[in-house]
Amino acid sequence: MIHQPLFVGLDVGGSSIRAAVVDDSGQLRCRPIAKPTEPDRGQDHGLQIMVAVIREAIAAAGVSVREISAIGAVVPGPLDLAAGVMLNPPNLKPWRDVPVRQHLEEQFELPTAFQNDANAAALGECWIGAGRHCHSLVMFTLGTGVGGGIVIDGQIVSGEHGHAGELGHVKIARTNGRLCGCGRHGCLEAYAGAPAIVARLREAIAAGADSSLADRSEFSAQDVFIAAADGDAGARSIVMETAEILGLAAANVMHVIDPNMIVFAGGIAGAGTEFLELIRTAARSQAFEIPAERCDIRYSSLGPDAGVIGAAACARALMRRRWGALQ
Amino acid sequence: MIHQPLFVGLDVGGSSIRAAVVDDSGQLRCRPIAKPTEPDRGQDHGLQIMVAVIREAIAAAGVSVREISAIGAVVPGPLDLAAGVMLNPPNLKPWRDVPVRQHLEEQFELPTAFQNDANAAALGECWIGAGRHCHSLVMFTLGTGVGGGIVIDGQIVSGEHGHAGELGHVKIARTNGRLCGCGRHGCLEAYAGAPAIVARLREAIAAGADSSLADRSEFSAQDVFIAAADGDAGARSIVMETAEILGLAAANVMHVIDPNMIVFAGGIAGAGTEFLELIRTAARSQAFEIPAERCDIRYSSLGPDAGVIGAAACARALMRRRWGALQ
Repeated sequence: MIHQPLFVGLDVGGSSIRAAVVDDSGQLRCRPIAKPTEPDRGQDHGLQIMVAVIREAIAAAGVSVREISAIGAVVPGPLDLAAGVMLNPPNLKPWRDVPVRQHLEEQFELPTAFQNDANAAALGECWIGAGRHCHSLVMFTLGTGVGGGIVIDGQIVSGEHGHAGELGHVKIARTNGRLCGCGRHGCLEAYAGAPAIVARLREAIAAGADSSLADRSEFSAQDVFIAAADGDAGARSIVMETAEILGLAAANVMHVIDPNMIVFAGGIAGAGTEFLELIRTAARSQAFEIPAERCDIRYSSLGPDAGVIGAAACARALMRRRWGALQ
Repeated sequence: MIHQPLFVGLDVGGSSIRAAVVDDSGQLRCRPIAKPTEPDRGQDHGLQIMVAVIREAIAAAGVSVREISAIGAVVPGPLDLAAGVMLNPPNLKPWRDVPVRQHLEEQFELPTAFQNDANAAALGECWIGAGRHCHSLVMFTLGTGVGGGIVIDGQIVSGEHGHAGELGHVKIARTNGRLCGCGRHGCLEAYAGAPAIVARLREAIAAGADSSLADRSEFSAQDVFIAAADGDAGARSIVMETAEILGLAAANVMHVIDPNMIVFAGGIAGAGTEFLELIRTAARSQAFEIPAERCDIRYSSLGPDAGVIGAAACARALMRRRWGALQ
């Protein structure tokens, strides 16, 4: 029997740290091992958890460290990509300057890829997700923040300073733009991030829009989508405007990168096919005919294991570059 | 003596068709040979002119066709990049579906690269221009239209359907955007193209702005820049707003591509260092700190030979890919 290369995908998040062994065809060789991150216990504790979930995942897959080709570690930004260091991730306070790659390389003596979560998710989606067989793909990750990842020719475009694919901070409004969490105005995230969707409905209600959510002291972006699906006029108007905004962002990507596919991931991917169709229609109306016709727009398809699969995809890409260089 | 590879750069424009022999270090081995395009004489005539200027350039360089490694042909869009065909260039009516690459390959029996002018200009600038030694570079070409070119890892990003780098048609205004020549609203070109700069000053004058150009029945974008430099209040306000708009476009590029350098080319590159500094300041205020600090913004430096140098750069890139594949 010929052994496929095996990779470990490590996904470091604000609430949990997960790892799994993934083979060269993208199949998980064990259930992902997850442990709570508990960032307040400090970054040394965090590094220990990373090592522990990797060891457990390797054991759960019934293999040994020697049989692993590479590790891929994906973490939330901001990060120093070249150095393999997490800087000061807002969801992982008080962590600062965490040398993730070096620590894992020392512990496991394995080649270790290091990447931000949105870039890795795009690569994973391009490998075995919605963009399987795509040559190029751009992903928008929609949650509290709006992130992005760009894959061209099967490689992540990280940028010269690790800032490529910061699609949430592309300005879509030149004047009177909404205030973004980054402190600037007019960013996509200030319109399409989950808190922005809530705030936009609150403002519409204050301006007289009719919505069943008007009486609620708190509601989420998901509540807005649910209300819209139930026929709530105010919520529906916000959802339609959100689709227009995402369609414009997608059209802009077509005119810069012109990829095979644009993928929307994150909570919004549960908003259903009608919402996706609204995004597609808006994008087509804003883009040149050829990319509008040929660039596919989809939701991500990888589900809850997207993080570890994306991480494994980075490990695999690292090894393919090395093996390629040897040929 | 070791012979350097030699390339022919062919630059097809609305008014002239130019060619030169360029060596592997970017030096022209002859003055560019230019002949009028006279598009109204038809595309067969145009193809003959292309062949004629190439033959004359090779003769002027004192070499033979056998000593040329490859030809690079750059043409205005729209084009079918994969097929090597110009489709229906607006400045070259009535040309349609012109098989430039095939014709040149048949005539010269040489490998022939085919590329749009803005992409080629970006590659040329990255080779021996302002972006010499850059790993990645994004160029805005500002004229009647606004184009763009993206180079990452020394390679042009053409997109899957030839539409990457259409930076003039990225939307910078989500609502109430200016009408663009493409028929859509809010495109960068609708603000920063030369006719748009003129129209914006006309509108400002109509709204009461004070300008010495108010009495002129016709004026150009260049006139607006000259008047601004002379202290004309209305013109100065339009020029400053244009710098803000280009700074925003540059910041958006930093958040998508994060290149080493952003280059502005075309007529606007003559607007002087103060204008460039205004663009830089605007970009820095809109971008994340790290790319804002580290991504250089400059004018193009190649001057009138940029077209043939960009074309030769495409020929050189074609051969380097082939030679690379043989190693």
